[in-house]
Amino acid sequence: MSAEPDRTAFLAAATALLGPRGLTSDPDLVAPWLTDWRGRFTGRALALASPGSTAEVAALVRLCADHGVPIVPQGGNSGMCGGATPDASGGALLLSLRRMDAVRQLDREARRITCEAGMILENLHHAADAAGLRFPLTLGGKGSATVGGLISTNAGGTQVLRHGSMRALVLGIEAVLADGSLFSALTPLKKDNRGFDLKQLLIGSEGTLGIITAATLALVPAVAERIAVWCAVPSVQVARQLLLHCEQALGPALEGFEIMPHASLAAVLAYLPAARAPLAGDHAWHVLIEATADAAGAAALRPTVEEAMTAAFAARLVEDAAFSANESQAEAFWTLRDSVAPAERAKGPAVQHDISVPVERMADFIDHAAPAIEAAFPGVEAVAFGHLGDGNVHFHVIAPPGVEGVAWQEGPGKKISAQVNDMVTAWGGSISAEHGIGQLKLGELERLGDPVALALLRRIKQALDPKGLLNPGKLVRAERAGGRAGEAASGPGLAPNSPSA
Amino acid sequence: MSAEPDRTAFLAAATALLGPRGLTSDPDLVAPWLTDWRGRFTGRALALASPGSTAEVAALVRLCADHGVPIVPQGGNSGMCGGATPDASGGALLLSLRRMDAVRQLDREARRITCEAGMILENLHHAADAAGLRFPLTLGGKGSATVGGLISTNAGGTQVLRHGSMRALVLGIEAVLADGSLFSALTPLKKDNRGFDLKQLLIGSEGTLGIITAATLALVPAVAERIAVWCAVPSVQVARQLLLHCEQALGPALEGFEIMPHASLAAVLAYLPAARAPLAGDHAWHVLIEATADAAGAAALRPTVEEAMTAAFAARLVEDAAFSANESQAEAFWTLRDSVAPAERAKGPAVQHDISVPVERMADFIDHAAPAIEAAFPGVEAVAFGHLGDGNVHFHVIAPPGVEGVAWQEGPGKKISAQVNDMVTAWGGSISAEHGIGQLKLGELERLGDPVALALLRRIKQALDPKGLLNPGKLVRAERAGGRAGEAASGPGLAPNSPSA
Repeated sequence: MSAEPDRTAFLAAATALLGPRGLTSDPDLVAPWLTDWRGRFTGRALALASPGSTAEVAALVRLCADHGVPIVPQGGNSGMCGGATPDASGGALLLSLRRMDAVRQLDREARRITCEAGMILENLHHAADAAGLRFPLTLGGKGSATVGGLISTNAGGTQVLRHGSMRALVLGIEAVLADGSLFSALTPLKKDNRGFDLKQLLIGSEGTLGIITAATLALVPAVAERIAVWCAVPSVQVARQLLLHCEQALGPALEGFEIMPHASLAAVLAYLPAARAPLAGDHAWHVLIEATADAAGAAALRPTVEEAMTAAFAARLVEDAAFSANESQAEAFWTLRDSVAPAERAKGPAVQHDISVPVERMADFIDHAAPAIEAAFPGVEAVAFGHLGDGNVHFHVIAPPGVEGVAWQEGPGKKISAQVNDMVTAWGGSISAEHGIGQLKLGELERLGDPVALALLRRIKQALDPKGLLNPGKLVRAERAGGRAGEAASGPGLAPNSPSA
Repeated sequence: MSAEPDRTAFLAAATALLGPRGLTSDPDLVAPWLTDWRGRFTGRALALASPGSTAEVAALVRLCADHGVPIVPQGGNSGMCGGATPDASGGALLLSLRRMDAVRQLDREARRITCEAGMILENLHHAADAAGLRFPLTLGGKGSATVGGLISTNAGGTQVLRHGSMRALVLGIEAVLADGSLFSALTPLKKDNRGFDLKQLLIGSEGTLGIITAATLALVPAVAERIAVWCAVPSVQVARQLLLHCEQALGPALEGFEIMPHASLAAVLAYLPAARAPLAGDHAWHVLIEATADAAGAAALRPTVEEAMTAAFAARLVEDAAFSANESQAEAFWTLRDSVAPAERAKGPAVQHDISVPVERMADFIDHAAPAIEAAFPGVEAVAFGHLGDGNVHFHVIAPPGVEGVAWQEGPGKKISAQVNDMVTAWGGSISAEHGIGQLKLGELERLGDPVALALLRRIKQALDPKGLLNPGKLVRAERAGGRAGEAASGPGLAPNSPSA
């Protein structure tokens, strides 16, 4: 690892392995994949590899190990934390899994699909639909996000309340490890106690322990009936009470419970001129509830939801409510919810935080944190919206009107983020509920993470990727010089990435 | 690690740390904990430590690390694979968690309990009941099994179909690591993507990576209505069709789906003279279905189950069926199910296998494996019973009448087990579905496990417990001499354990 890798020899060998379709250094072809989804990071790469099979990935990783070439795996390049963007050194190989997008097997009776890592989420939805089933996880980037990326970041979304994050839906995994060996555990066993759960270790590891090449995923029965209810509530505390009520009254039919403050709805209505407020009058907070049922439960769903909402009215948990009468009304409600993030962005520069605290503390946290930030940074506006049912909100702090965006984000914005992260940590929460760490949050994780947990991350990284070639500079840094004696030397110093926006 | 630890100095320091209640070398007090639950392994120990707090565990583990003393953690000593029994060397400290049995917190609204590792499962059931809630995992050893042991072995049981194994119920963990540092992650976050899931890594690690001292566990609504249905079916293939039908018709109300062959029911009726067969006539296979509902769903449960069974009759999926009319009838059905293992044991010497294959292949596996074993080993009887809904059965092979038990188990029994494990592996299954590896199955895991997965287990073990002091000789052995260069030396050679029965 001390010698500079022989890039020419490596590229020649990689080209021989993958062919012209599988490897390119053409700047026009590579450039689109060097900047992350949110435009915050831009890096450079030695080349873009697009292997067509697991065997090619394994051979390529072995080649990289032999030549000491770092690898940055990439799916749809729609991550939120720069986890799939290489650093500025230009020494890393960008490894795209997008060509590997086949369905290997779909078992309708067992409700399972085995597909390759490059399969795009929306295509996975279509494949499940075509079989009369459903893959329940969904999120804004579904048109580009891939199965491999979703697993590597343990992605969430709006249906987690019922169906869990990606971790809960992964039944089996196939991954290429740092030395090119193949970890093959696609066969789904409901029970298997043969040692540490290696599948769980790979989920959410952001490509730092292995490169996921395929997965077996759970499918669920198709939705036969869906009801969305838009509710107005006087406070986020009451929203929390309403959540408890709905959990009790709806049980597993409760699939989503999303909140937004008055200001966020106003921003959406300004952003979408054709949209209309679901309810008359002004209300401090809004809740979007989704209840679903499969064919067996379809008939009972509407009466159950109506009864639950009648009880909620009686208990003064809602000020007003509108039920979706059909699919297009339900879609219209969800369009409002899904437009909060772009509408808030349209208001001006902002710093965004994807945070969680224990579910029962989130209402208190919002009531505490938003005024605290607005008091500490005069002129800003703090809004929290999202997945109250998961104890996870997106906490956006919008710059005072008229400031210059980049300078504000790099200056006061960073101070604000630090204070938000300090508060979240003090409340026992997570500075990354669903977006992962990538390169964006690595510094804050190192600053605020439990030192015992951080040491475990480093030891595991060191054990599974001793040369530090898998997605370097993301999620976990190798132990620094001066670390524990007797362990192998850490990877080479990494060129810092250049924020591009 | 090369020098023999100074045991006298260690014991003096440990006594000073824990006091006379916390440490004993009295053979009368230590002996009961040196033989495993099934009486297959007996070891020796330096002393029995019973710390009273997490701080004491941490200090004790540091002391062990300083003196190079191996540690065997133990909960209720009710494991099935000798995972909590020390080896024969007498050099290890037996560390009992049983004194640490406090409830730290129970949050009724959030449906959670935080308790110490030594809490006995039955007491956990009582604590949940007292709060109007329920801890859904249960198993035969509930009167002695502890929370720490259940987590360390990712225990299963009869309610896994609905509620999952222990892994699915653990929301947070506190554990002491090999160097005495404290991994503290008890705060339950529904979403947290700050790196590898260390909690998942510790679950099922059988005390080889850390010693669990406390956990936060999920509770579920109390059962308001329960219906058990005893069904007769003509074959295990039809039982599988009935399972699919019930999953479809009952959805989340389906909580258990257990099978047993005619021979097992006959054995139970011989073993329990007061018991009666639930159905008249002879039937090849029996299925015990359990459906439950909380208060919200209680009224709808019986009509739903009756409708489902009517449809099953119409589709010729059941030959006959009996519904429990009340709790005592439901209990009587479950007593029959829970007595299969002791009834089979009463028939004579047997070798037992806790195996899984993909759920949809289990019927085929049973139809293939039982005749294959009976043909290969004339005179034996192979029976499979248990959790068809989890793809997990207990596959018992009973010795021919009149053989001498120990000699048969050590001779033909081992050959039979090897053949069963070979078949399970060839079918993509697990040689340990829910009991873990411990020392009983370590050799078979090393023989049949995927070498890539085994190498990962060893590397992780080496990274987190470089001195090899945590439960040595269980689940994963340190890499042998001649392993990879540059890695630290593996632990000392371990004295083999002496099978005692």
